[in-house]
Parts: sequence; structure tokens; C-alpha cells
Amino acid sequence: MRAELVAVGTELLIGQIANTNARWISERLAELGIDVLHHQVVGDNADRIVASIRLAASRSDVVIVTGGLGPTQDDVTRPALAEAAGATLVRHPEIEAELRDRFEVRGREMPDSNLAQADVPEPGRFIHPERGTAPGLIVSVDEATVYAVPGVPSEMREMMEGTVLPELAELAGPSALVSRTLRCYGLAESRIAELLDDLFHAAANPSVAYLAGDGEVHVRLTAKAGTREEAASLLVPLEERVRERLGDHVYGADDETMEAVVGRLLLEGGHTLGCAESLTGGGLGERITAVPGASSYFLGSAVTYALEAKRSLLHVSAETLEGPGPVSRECAAEMAAGARRLFGADVAVALTGAAGPEAHGGAEPGQVWIGLDAEGVEHQFGFRWPFDRELIRRFAEMAALDLVRRHLLGLPLPG
Amino acid sequence: MRAELVAVGTELLIGQIANTNARWISERLAELGIDVLHHQVVGDNADRIVASIRLAASRSDVVIVTGGLGPTQDDVTRPALAEAAGATLVRHPEIEAELRDRFEVRGREMPDSNLAQADVPEPGRFIHPERGTAPGLIVSVDEATVYAVPGVPSEMREMMEGTVLPELAELAGPSALVSRTLRCYGLAESRIAELLDDLFHAAANPSVAYLAGDGEVHVRLTAKAGTREEAASLLVPLEERVRERLGDHVYGADDETMEAVVGRLLLEGGHTLGCAESLTGGGLGERITAVPGASSYFLGSAVTYALEAKRSLLHVSAETLEGPGPVSRECAAEMAAGARRLFGADVAVALTGAAGPEAHGGAEPGQVWIGLDAEGVEHQFGFRWPFDRELIRRFAEMAALDLVRRHLLGLPLPG
Repeated sequence: MRAELVAVGTELLIGQIANTNARWISERLAELGIDVLHHQVVGDNADRIVASIRLAASRSDVVIVTGGLGPTQDDVTRPALAEAAGATLVRHPEIEAELRDRFEVRGREMPDSNLAQADVPEPGRFIHPERGTAPGLIVSVDEATVYAVPGVPSEMREMMEGTVLPELAELAGPSALVSRTLRCYGLAESRIAELLDDLFHAAANPSVAYLAGDGEVHVRLTAKAGTREEAASLLVPLEERVRERLGDHVYGADDETMEAVVGRLLLEGGHTLGCAESLTGGGLGERITAVPGASSYFLGSAVTYALEAKRSLLHVSAETLEGPGPVSRECAAEMAAGARRLFGADVAVALTGAAGPEAHGGAEPGQVWIGLDAEGVEHQFGFRWPFDRELIRRFAEMAALDLVRRHLLGLPLPG
Repeated sequence: MRAELVAVGTELLIGQIANTNARWISERLAELGIDVLHHQVVGDNADRIVASIRLAASRSDVVIVTGGLGPTQDDVTRPALAEAAGATLVRHPEIEAELRDRFEVRGREMPDSNLAQADVPEPGRFIHPERGTAPGLIVSVDEATVYAVPGVPSEMREMMEGTVLPELAELAGPSALVSRTLRCYGLAESRIAELLDDLFHAAANPSVAYLAGDGEVHVRLTAKAGTREEAASLLVPLEERVRERLGDHVYGADDETMEAVVGRLLLEGGHTLGCAESLTGGGLGERITAVPGASSYFLGSAVTYALEAKRSLLHVSAETLEGPGPVSRECAAEMAAGARRLFGADVAVALTGAAGPEAHGGAEPGQVWIGLDAEGVEHQFGFRWPFDRELIRRFAEMAALDLVRRHLLGLPLPG
């Protein structure tokens, strides 16, 4: 089965954004063992969209069109798709009613232009939108099935995951690519590559690949076989060996983020967590609460950006603030103890540092201190990373979460 | 002049990387006033590369091919390009000598496969590589000029900036594209399109386009003229009219984010800000502190996820928590007042809500309350958005920041 992607949007052709949708969709199709031979990008021009869809349909079994389904005048994928398919656009009363409802709920008046989103090609099907207002569309062009989904990444993913990929998995049948991602923290990509060198070169199937980013490294194991079950069973011994080599640096697998792992461990142990943050401005709490159900274990975070807030909320001593300063082991320790007391938490973790670009609190940019406070445990460690502001903040959050993970699992603590 | 991009590389088709080269090149071509009507991506397959180049040459004046010029077996752009151009590959002695030199300097033996990089289509020209080993190539296919450059971004940029873009600038003549982005909050994309309908249809130059995402809408104005100065001056009256129509919903321009605007206003007014968050778990503070220099006006955020934290840190009353509950106008008001007192801030903003997927604190998922507290001002408003957890959190942060912006500018407050 061959698939082709057609991205619609002048913003792609003038370089305003990159075609990240194509990357995401291609990756998902590869997992299903579906070959993608071409991507196309075309502007918001009906004739050229029609020509691109026809070209794609002439050489592929499945065409996925992204973008141009919105309510504005430059959104012309819908009529172009109908033209390519030789179909007629028919207003769908259910979609129309739902569109009106959505605006009503938000207390806004619906502009008439929005109604075009209720038009569905006949013959054809539509995909119900959960997030946005634009339904996806499914039509046949010659022998090919053409799916059109919104260009907004979250809306695109919702429809791909909910409808398009399951349909394609069904069609692709039993030739499957199965991947397993082991998520590692605390080892550089080059060190991991060294540890897994022989496994990397051993065979093309199953294969080993690395992807580094945001302070962690993902080791991706992929197997191809006649069925998903066979492919999955090829991965089992490989995963075992990789885990042996990387040890407790493997913190999770597949989609389980570090914050989800920490949340699971807190829940399992019946512990509560409180935080104190300076450097990250709330990013640590934001991350912890991105996990649904975090209210079962997360009490809160004292974001004490100002010195006075560190003093009044967390009772960091004047001695510490005036001596070693707000970016110091001592301050991290007092912040953690203060957060534990403030929230009445079983475990507290605190983050302070200088994200840059300027030096801060007497510390060089990139200097971070992390403290953990729990029954019988007071632990701090520091590091300096020569990264930019955003990266230092993301890395510091990961380091703080990993410290909590290690504490909860009884593993050796860093520093 | 019309240009088209053809990216070669199976790694793009399996979603291993995004086609960021296309974005970069498109942006450069737009600056020269050259229209890009299509992007194509094709794998490391000679026949398909030939077909893609021919298709591009049939509808464009200039074709830029990226990737597939390296020394390994899967690099087949060179012979494909020669075939598409009806040219013969001839080994170029100077390039060969240079390739051998490069390996000698690094004390490495040169694999014979590298010699293919010394092959140049005849008739044709080559671009000398400074960083990598692969020369770029220039041939004619029908009426079109085809440039082939490496896929490695740094090597691609070097040849584009050194050779291709200067040649194209010469060909394109004195013409430039200038864009201005107006960032809007509080109006749906469709409503904005309605308000600007006549401007949208008035002329192709300057032009109006919309891009929606993350709770805001960007209105992009683009003008084309002989020089950048002329293009910029075409934008002035258009920007004025758009601003008139959209009024105080335009919160900033170009790269200035909402949090940067709020930061600038706080700084200008000499005001300090404190926050209280529940729903967003720290995301509001994270966003505010993403702006370098935020410590001049941001004091902190009390992330009170647990009821008890709302009580003890912010002094939200038992009456409120047990009556209307933690997701209510009353709670938002008490949280804002509590945060202002706790941090000793001039302005405080508080966010509470149910991000879902479950109902929370007696409120349906998607219900958000925002409160602002400042000298003489106590304002709250609520809304319910039928989005998913992440989106509700991002939208709520935007709404809270916009409330602070409106307060600081003395604009009418929502709700």
C-alpha cells in the first residue's frame, strides 16, 4: 500500500512554518508498514490543489491532505477536493447545528462564513471534529482514497489517531512494523551509542535508533514481521539486553513521560508532592499537572521568583540569601524544606538557578541547584549547563523530576 | 519568476526528520520576491527523482533540489539530475584532487565511492563546497534552471547564500517581499476574516492572510515591491486599516508574544505582578518568566492545586470552597486577592478551572474562572471551552494574560 501526503497552505510555501505535519504523519504510516513515496506542498489555490490531489491519486492508494479546511476565504481545500473527486458539496444539517452550538456555548456570534465547514462532498464521508470546528473529509478519487484533515497540528492528530490511522491499519493488513521506545535520562547520546554499539550493528531487523532532545535520549527499537504479534516478539529479547546495558537510566517506555512515571510512583506509594521553583517559574508544576489525575498526589508549587517571596513563603533565611545567595545548595535545601512544610507534603523538591542570559543571584548563567526534602532525606545537587534559557529550564525540570523518581525507587541520588 | 523545491531523502518520507530546508529556502526566496508554488519530497530512488525534477521543470523557472549528493550508495541525485537534463556525467579532475586532499589532511583513506562526488553533468556547472565534500550542481532542464545542493542544512545554506541566492537575486531583479504580522486575541479567526473581508479581496499586493493557533490569530500582511523600503511603505496604510477594524484585539506585532507585551507594560508602569494558579499548575508563571528580565516585575505564583493549599496560602474561605467550590467566580476572586497579599504585588491574577478529562470541584471540564485584583479593581470572568486538557490550559493562560494587559492599558475588561 502506497500513501502520499499533500499539504495545503501558502504559509508553508513562503517559509512561515515547516511542514511538521508531514513528518508526524509519515512516522505513523511507517509504523503501519505503509510506504510513503511522495510529499507535496501546494498553496491556497483551488486549481493547484485539484491538480496535486489528482497527481497523488494517480500514483498512490491513499492520499492524505492537510490544511485548508478552515472557515476563511483562503481555505479552499473543501471545494478543490470535491472537484477532484467529481463530487458535489452538500450542507450537512447535523454539522451545521453543532457549529452553531459551539459558538453559542462560548457566547460568540457565528459568522456565516463558518457554515462552509458544514459542506460535505457527496459521495463522501466526514470525520467529526472534537477540538476544532472543521470536519475532516473522506472521498474517492479514481482508485485512491483521499482523506482531508485540518492543518492545525492538534486537530490533525486527533483525526488521524481517531479515524484515519485505524482505517489504514485495517487496510494495510498483516505486515507490521512495531516500535518500542525506551526513554533514558542521565546518559549522553554518545555514551548510549557506545554501550549499545554491537546491538546497533547486529541486524537491520530488529533495529536500534537514537533520538536525543529536551534532556533525554530515546532508544527506539523497531521490528518488522508478518503480524504485529510476531514483530512485537522480535523486540522482547532486544529490549531486555538494552535495559541490562542502560540500567536505571531507563525511566520509562513509549509515551510515558518522566512526569507520568513520577506521578505513578507517587500514587502507588500513597505519597504527596510539593514543589518550590524559582528558575523555572512554574514549569515544574505545569509539567507535573499535565498528567491527568495529578490532583491525587500533587499539592502545589511555590513559585518564588522574587527574593522576598523566597523569604516570606518558604522561610529561606536572610543568612542564606545574603551569603551563598539565592542560587546555591543552601537555598535549594531551604526551599525544599520550606515547600514541604508549606504544603504539608511527604516529598518536596526545589529548583533554583540562573537561566540567563544574565548572571543572577551571584551565579553564572546555566547554574542550577536542586534540593529534595522528605522524611529522613535532605539531598541537594548542582550543575552548570552551557545552554540557552529555555533549554536550561527544560533540563532543570527533568533533573528535578528524575531526583524525585530516584528517591521514590530507592536508587542512588546524583551529586 | 516561479521556483519549486524538490527535497530528496527517504528519511523525510519515513518521518525521521522534518523538511526544515524547504522552510528556510522558501523564506529566502520570498525575501527576493520569488514565488514558490510547490514543494515536493521524494525518496532516494533515481526514477522518481528524475520524474519529480521533470515535473518541477515543466511548471517552474527555477528548481532547487536538496539532498542525495553524498558519497553513499543511496545518494542518487547526481545521476538522476544528469538524466533529467539529458547530460553526461564527466569526472572533474580538480574536484577529484580536492576530495583526495581533504581526506589526506584528516589522515583518512578515501573510500572509492567518494569519487562519484567529482562527477559533474556536461553541459552543466558545479558549486564548490566549503564545508562538506559534495559539490552543488547547476543544469538546465527544458527552460528551467535546476540547482542541486546538499541536504545537510549547513552545507545547503552555504551554497544557497554563496551562489544560488545571489544568482536568483540577479535574475529576479529588484523586487522584495516584506511581511508584518499583527497578533490578535479575543476574536475568532472567522470573525476576523469577516471584519477584513474587503481588504482580503481588495488586492493581491499587499495581501492579507490568517494563521490561527494556541488561542490567538495572526493576521499577516505582505507586500511586494522593487525594494524592501517600497514594500514596507505599502504595508503602512494597510496595517492602519486592519488595526482600526480589529481595535484593541491586536495585542502585538511580529515576534512579540502576549507575555512579552504584558511584561513590557508592567515594566513601563513600574508595576509588580503576582499570580495564583490551580488549573494551569504553574504554566502561567512559566510563560511570564519565559521573557528574559521578568524578575523586574514578576514576584511569584502560588500554585495551589490542593484545596488545603488554597486555604493555607491564599486564605480562600471555607465558605467558598464548600459553597460555590474551587472552580467559581468567588474562588477566583479570593485567590487573586490572596496572591496580591501573599506577594505584596500591585496586580494579581488568578486562574482556576477544570481542565478535564473529569469534572472537578463541582465544575464541568472546560470551565475556567479568572480573577484580577489591583488597587480599586476586583474583576472576575468565566467561560467554558469544549477543548482538551492541554488546550484549555493554554487558552486559560492567554485569557489571564490578556486580562492583565487590558487592565494595564485601561481597556474594558471581559465578562
